[in-house]
Amino acid sequence: MPGPAYDLALANRILAREGVVDAYGHVSLRHPGQESRFLLSCSRSPELVTPQDIMEFDLAGEPADRADERQTYLERFIHSAVYESRGDVMAVVHSHSPAVLPFSITDAPLRPAIHTAGLIGARIPVWDIRTKFGDTDMLVRNMEQGRDMARNLGACSVILMRGHGCTVAAADLKEAVIAAIYLQLNAAVQLAACQLGKLRYLSDSETKLTAETNRLPAVKARMWDYYVKRADAGF
Amino acid sequence: MPGPAYDLALANRILAREGVVDAYGHVSLRHPGQESRFLLSCSRSPELVTPQDIMEFDLAGEPADRADERQTYLERFIHSAVYESRGDVMAVVHSHSPAVLPFSITDAPLRPAIHTAGLIGARIPVWDIRTKFGDTDMLVRNMEQGRDMARNLGACSVILMRGHGCTVAAADLKEAVIAAIYLQLNAAVQLAACQLGKLRYLSDSETKLTAETNRLPAVKARMWDYYVKRADAGF
Amino acid sequence: MPGPAYDLALANRILAREGVVDAYGHVSLRHPGQESRFLLSCSRSPELVTPQDIMEFDLAGEPADRADERQTYLERFIHSAVYESRGDVMAVVHSHSPAVLPFSITDAPLRPAIHTAGLIGARIPVWDIRTKFGDTDMLVRNMEQGRDMARNLGACSVILMRGHGCTVAAADLKEAVIAAIYLQLNAAVQLAACQLGKLRYLSDSETKLTAETNRLPAVKARMWDYYVKRADAGF
Amino acid sequence: MPGPAYDLALANRILAREGVVDAYGHVSLRHPGQESRFLLSCSRSPELVTPQDIMEFDLAGEPADRADERQTYLERFIHSAVYESRGDVMAVVHSHSPAVLPFSITDAPLRPAIHTAGLIGARIPVWDIRTKFGDTDMLVRNMEQGRDMARNLGACSVILMRGHGCTVAAADLKEAVIAAIYLQLNAAVQLAACQLGKLRYLSDSETKLTAETNRLPAVKARMWDYYVKRADAGF
Repeated sequence: MPGPAYDLALANRILAREGVVDAYGHVSLRHPGQESRFLLSCSRSPELVTPQDIMEFDLAGEPADRADERQTYLERFIHSAVYESRGDVMAVVHSHSPAVLPFSITDAPLRPAIHTAGLIGARIPVWDIRTKFGDTDMLVRNMEQGRDMARNLGACSVILMRGHGCTVAAADLKEAVIAAIYLQLNAAVQLAACQLGKLRYLSDSETKLTAETNRLPAVKARMWDYYVKRADAGF
Repeated sequence: MPGPAYDLALANRILAREGVVDAYGHVSLRHPGQESRFLLSCSRSPELVTPQDIMEFDLAGEPADRADERQTYLERFIHSAVYESRGDVMAVVHSHSPAVLPFSITDAPLRPAIHTAGLIGARIPVWDIRTKFGDTDMLVRNMEQGRDMARNLGACSVILMRGHGCTVAAADLKEAVIAAIYLQLNAAVQLAACQLGKLRYLSDSETKLTAETNRLPAVKARMWDYYVKRADAGF
Repeated sequence: MPGPAYDLALANRILAREGVVDAYGHVSLRHPGQESRFLLSCSRSPELVTPQDIMEFDLAGEPADRADERQTYLERFIHSAVYESRGDVMAVVHSHSPAVLPFSITDAPLRPAIHTAGLIGARIPVWDIRTKFGDTDMLVRNMEQGRDMARNLGACSVILMRGHGCTVAAADLKEAVIAAIYLQLNAAVQLAACQLGKLRYLSDSETKLTAETNRLPAVKARMWDYYVKRADAGF
Repeated sequence: MPGPAYDLALANRILAREGVVDAYGHVSLRHPGQESRFLLSCSRSPELVTPQDIMEFDLAGEPADRADERQTYLERFIHSAVYESRGDVMAVVHSHSPAVLPFSITDAPLRPAIHTAGLIGARIPVWDIRTKFGDTDMLVRNMEQGRDMARNLGACSVILMRGHGCTVAAADLKEAVIAAIYLQLNAAVQLAACQLGKLRYLSDSETKLTAETNRLPAVKARMWDYYVKRADAGF
């Protein structure tokens, strides 16, 4: 039945189908009617998420319903910290996309090189949890770590996390999903191209203008229809 | 039911199945009976196109039936401009094939290196929309931009578009589809081979002779049967 | 029907689905009730293994039931030698994972670079059967060869075998399967990243701490559910 | 119904499933009862071949039944020339495997680096049709060209064809199919490994000894069962 939980479950399946997430990774949506809440699945691999798995969380990253005892993701603070610091963000994807990871462990900056990836933004910072928190299990396990990541994200759309993955923040759910998919494609194309010689990236203006086109409702609708078909969620 | 719209819908599905197109990309066919018209889907991802989605356009890129209010592709001018300038072209594919993109953003020329790719031609120009139009959203949004691209295509079969993708022009629909598929394969093989050392490309004569073989009706028919089976379109 | 043979058959299917094993490769489990025995399929590709194929072996690598005349894997000694030398090991995966192989035939050390791969351990030795046994068919065909490999494995979790593949030893079946999958992913990411420049690997402490997280029952359970769904074993 | 035509159709499907062949490529079998004849499909993509498509050819590459008017492969002379010159060869695969192609257009020799690829042999020559025949459409279109290729193959198991593909010759059908699959895997691993540094290849003795193991009936049977399951031919 259509609604935010249904759309969010679908977003999980799409990201799984496109290889952005595997056993790990998650996607959230700010509560449409209540800006200090967000929706996120209980701890389950995106490929298995159904609308019934969607829970409500507060901006401290805790379940809104304290009586709900389902297992939660250890890293739910990635989401709460971004929603807390960025009123413009309505959806967040956290993934370990294999094509993106190489850029998180080297000094090569990931930059928009193809016009379908304008949504990732002209500048993509890399955050290293070790800088402030020393040796850890690399997970964003509390608000302090989440806030440090969110601070490094600043006003950007994407942040890479060293040896871990990336987080995508966007103005709506479809945009977050599409940005996460084309972030992955841009990374793969950039890696391949750098075998061939010096790259010509999008200019900052091109990045901005392509992002505007990618945000057109008709464009997003066309893409969503495609990814929904491929995901074949069955619910 | 067989016919141009059916064949064109099938071509959409084949290109989607082979990864040449994803949510984006399109393929068109000059109207078999009326050379100043061409057929193209309404705005829909190729994987979802059915024969019912095929519309008729004039060479200015506008719907032949002005009362048809379906959403059209923003980039339909890629097709109209090529048909306008090239009387020999009967079918056009526009794609963002990931294997091809690296050659659009570096100085490494994409060249035929394998005999199945003769149809792509000995010389593949790269067009940069920025040269003439400055910072844009990279899309070919009007006839002026389309004509500039077509001028750069000249008499070639393929043109790369910087940071965007490529356009394939061919003498019939099967040839356009097959050229787009083997363009992608040639790009992947060329990228891999350049990790190993200096390449031996096809000579210009070999390119011409292999293209002639690739155009034999029996060869095209064998390939079409194969790609149709894989596409498994279900209409 | 749940039980060790069922779980082990499932582990075979998961490893096949994830491309860790192909026609070759195997996974074993120390007998839960009898530490001098282990369970391993008869000679069959992992994609085809069913619970009925699981046999019992002793620590000399011979079938516990000498009357069981089913064909056994030539390399069952990989498993018996590891169980013999490592009381802490309850499950062993042997594979020829294509992403891992390049690191077995070059001097580039495979090292944990992503936090999902902490289970592979900070140090991954490479064993060359030729060092002690000269020219062979590369297979571990007897206890002497198995013991030499196990000695080189030492207290590590993973050992690479030159021109052959790798062996993963773990504290339980799920952990062995997950380590084998993320070993493969780490290898692919490391290979890609080294095209971009100098790598930042996990520190030894990070490796240890991420491994501890990867061993949490809730984390393992989530992952297992995911891989079981994908494997779609049908038994 | 089991029999040579059935097995050969199955071999076609296996090679298609494993990506060794696509719309192009073919596999043949010397007639089990008549050594001057061989079996090969009529002109059809391997993915579509059924037992009914199998035709009988003589060693000049012509249909044994001259009244059989089905379209034949243009390159059937690859097969006839190898059978003519090599009495030990019972099966031949001709493919354009994308992983193998880079080694046909550079000076990097393809060499066995992994123990599953011993069947490809220690030395793999590269044949360039241009050397003797100048600019052509690259196809082996007659016995003269086939014989020149066969001469360059000599006593080897595999020959690469510049800008075209490769031909695998083996002592039986299963061996030819398995060699073609692991040729492809060896090429992919070798390409990846050469990004990491200097390679350690199999020694010539190791190549010989691993090939002997790969030829063991129990090993071939295990592999065949696996590839047949994956091919899921449905006939």
